[in-house]
Amino acid sequence: MSDTPTFDLPRRLTAEALGTGVLVAAVVGSGIMGERLTDDVALALLANTIATGAILIVLITVFGPISGAHFNPAVTLAMRLRGAIAGRAALAYVTVQIAGGIAGAVAAHVMFELPPLMLSGHVRTGLSQWWAEIVASFGLVGFILGGLRFAPHAIPWLVGLFITAAYWFTASTSFANPAVAIARAFTDTFSGIRPLDVPGFILAQCVGAVLAVILFEWLLNPGQKLTIRFSMAADERD
Amino acid sequence: MSDTPTFDLPRRLTAEALGTGVLVAAVVGSGIMGERLTDDVALALLANTIATGAILIVLITVFGPISGAHFNPAVTLAMRLRGAIAGRAALAYVTVQIAGGIAGAVAAHVMFELPPLMLSGHVRTGLSQWWAEIVASFGLVGFILGGLRFAPHAIPWLVGLFITAAYWFTASTSFANPAVAIARAFTDTFSGIRPLDVPGFILAQCVGAVLAVILFEWLLNPGQKLTIRFSMAADERD
Amino acid sequence: MSDTPTFDLPRRLTAEALGTGVLVAAVVGSGIMGERLTDDVALALLANTIATGAILIVLITVFGPISGAHFNPAVTLAMRLRGAIAGRAALAYVTVQIAGGIAGAVAAHVMFELPPLMLSGHVRTGLSQWWAEIVASFGLVGFILGGLRFAPHAIPWLVGLFITAAYWFTASTSFANPAVAIARAFTDTFSGIRPLDVPGFILAQCVGAVLAVILFEWLLNPGQKLTIRFSMAADERD
Amino acid sequence: MSDTPTFDLPRRLTAEALGTGVLVAAVVGSGIMGERLTDDVALALLANTIATGAILIVLITVFGPISGAHFNPAVTLAMRLRGAIAGRAALAYVTVQIAGGIAGAVAAHVMFELPPLMLSGHVRTGLSQWWAEIVASFGLVGFILGGLRFAPHAIPWLVGLFITAAYWFTASTSFANPAVAIARAFTDTFSGIRPLDVPGFILAQCVGAVLAVILFEWLLNPGQKLTIRFSMAADERD
Repeated sequence: MSDTPTFDLPRRLTAEALGTGVLVAAVVGSGIMGERLTDDVALALLANTIATGAILIVLITVFGPISGAHFNPAVTLAMRLRGAIAGRAALAYVTVQIAGGIAGAVAAHVMFELPPLMLSGHVRTGLSQWWAEIVASFGLVGFILGGLRFAPHAIPWLVGLFITAAYWFTASTSFANPAVAIARAFTDTFSGIRPLDVPGFILAQCVGAVLAVILFEWLLNPGQKLTIRFSMAADERD
Repeated sequence: MSDTPTFDLPRRLTAEALGTGVLVAAVVGSGIMGERLTDDVALALLANTIATGAILIVLITVFGPISGAHFNPAVTLAMRLRGAIAGRAALAYVTVQIAGGIAGAVAAHVMFELPPLMLSGHVRTGLSQWWAEIVASFGLVGFILGGLRFAPHAIPWLVGLFITAAYWFTASTSFANPAVAIARAFTDTFSGIRPLDVPGFILAQCVGAVLAVILFEWLLNPGQKLTIRFSMAADERD
Repeated sequence: MSDTPTFDLPRRLTAEALGTGVLVAAVVGSGIMGERLTDDVALALLANTIATGAILIVLITVFGPISGAHFNPAVTLAMRLRGAIAGRAALAYVTVQIAGGIAGAVAAHVMFELPPLMLSGHVRTGLSQWWAEIVASFGLVGFILGGLRFAPHAIPWLVGLFITAAYWFTASTSFANPAVAIARAFTDTFSGIRPLDVPGFILAQCVGAVLAVILFEWLLNPGQKLTIRFSMAADERD
Repeated sequence: MSDTPTFDLPRRLTAEALGTGVLVAAVVGSGIMGERLTDDVALALLANTIATGAILIVLITVFGPISGAHFNPAVTLAMRLRGAIAGRAALAYVTVQIAGGIAGAVAAHVMFELPPLMLSGHVRTGLSQWWAEIVASFGLVGFILGGLRFAPHAIPWLVGLFITAAYWFTASTSFANPAVAIARAFTDTFSGIRPLDVPGFILAQCVGAVLAVILFEWLLNPGQKLTIRFSMAADERD
């Protein structure tokens, strides 16, 4: 989650694609393993939770210094709003996050002898689910911003532990990530989401991310007023 | 858990309210998710435990430098007794902790399509339960005081891990927090507590906190005698 | 696990007694909670494991700088063999560890509305069990010695995580602690051990500890030959 | 995972043998404990996962400064390709890893009153399994290389957490280690693998390790082209 990457764009995009891919492979793969090994849905979700939380800590530690370890268009949006990434690079980030995520789903399916891509039939829609995604994305982005300010080295743990908790306390199991949501539309297994329901999730995730930027920019900067103006000046180093 | 916050009172109170709110949302929400997904009460409690422990680590890391990350009137009481917070600020802390906690319960209920507020019917009373709360609060406050002395950066982990353990080894599942106890009176789900039983819990929690301050002030300060005099001088910076 | 405590003996003994007491309360209490909430023994043991591992990390972080955080006569024996604690202090340590452990069992029983002390009927004996205790105590002491040499600040985690693993991979669930074994003879619940079987466990634990001191003193000190001579000179500062 | 061990070869080999032995004892022992205590395969695998992840963190922290804490011929191969270990030492490492691993299986069997060595009947073969092992070994080696570059002190956690996740998201439960695979051929319990299937696993593991070296050498070194030339010059300090 470094603000000052010194790696070139191809390496940063490789890190974003690979990181998002492994993240989705972990989410989808552990979901499949869980539902195959037990009939207890709570236990399957617990395995899903542990695998996701653990891999996030690893991925952010290793790829953070290269690309900032967003792996998540909602995080890239928040960084863009803060002026921490240029517009062109942000677009490239989001593109490879989505592509990497889908590739991660394929990788998981091949491991478990499933078709490379399927369409999910798992209904996840309605006001409660969207509210859950707003909460989850607000928390994720807010705690990343707080971590960047006070404990940058702890960010891998903050993200991993927040998602571990949010899997259980948000009714949507905390997707909190548009690229992961898109990739999960292509798996008809434990962690899937019906394609039709993806746009609602993405919208809610962006709303949560923007709210977090607004509140935490105020909260973390004494002397500054609450505002919705964003820094779009962005360093154009890319 | 910093002793020297440099943030203004509105930001500190926002951090306390938001932190307590997210904490309660995590406790209540994960309790609901657990009881919906499994019939095994131990498994539901395990999910509840993991979500609570994980979110505590995140919240204390991010909000600690702003407000001290009390989220808990028993902790604020202990800090007041040590003279680490002024009386007026302490009262404001407790007020927003309670308000934030109730808001957190509402946030969780909306995610899970439940009425915003309910009254719990979950009986938690009797000498054994009160003893459990004394033990839990004694440990929580004592280990925070020890952590402040020897390992301030580890405090998020000390609190998260202590509560993780105390969920299981105290018969009350370790509320150890008057604001959270009040908020949990308003949820008729897994983690609820009958309103009638809340005062007994709060009293036990305060007793445990005061005992911890007495013992650990002696234990941590060689050359000092065991005493029940408290520093109430408190810096009046607020 | 500090080698150079600067706290006076009464405070060190208080830390040892309180730490061992909370440790036993966590082991016994979480065992009771687990067996009450589920019929699945693996799940009960998992709860027992998590509570024990988590509380160890907390206790060693907080009490380490005061007393060295032994909480365990086998560890005190190893420190005595290394000359890191005087003989008289070591005897006092072991005495309060045992007393504190039994008090911890009482504290747990009262929380769960059980008789203060019971005699366990849980048979744990035989060559396989003793071998398991040798392995567990060898690992515990060896990894503490390695940690003292290379990563002193990580010792709370090394101990907590080693015990977490050893609960599952040693057939005895890794008591690895004579004081805890004695205390667990007084609980006729999940974590109990038949009094008759305690001496065999204690002997095996001491064997494991001594073997660890011998091997790790060689392993950690290049240029030194494998030897069974111990430093008994011990600084007589106590 | 230190690149510059200052310990002599006998101590380094002792660390590799002992570390691999304890690792295998943890994998095999916790698998036996899990399958004995529950009928739920997911729960048994969860216990297996937690024990393995926890012991890896301990072992790498303690033995890393002595031998680099490979415990794994695929890791030794990667270090050889990077020129971080001499050829003769690498061969000795692999030899004692295999011997230590088998001894660890024996140690576990004796604890659980089983024959010292058995041949496993657990079929693990086919393209999906091999693909899973490629993914697992690629990730393990890649994240070690990334960790060595950016966060050397975090490597014990990176490895422990990656394996924790990979147990669940790879269809093979992530052996990712030729020495451990060989040792697990000698246990006809939960974690076993049919001897006939071991060569396929080892080949896949080496492929994953080599791919990781190629990609991460490029990714971590801006200005360097993607290449398959390896540094075999290796310091001949051994």
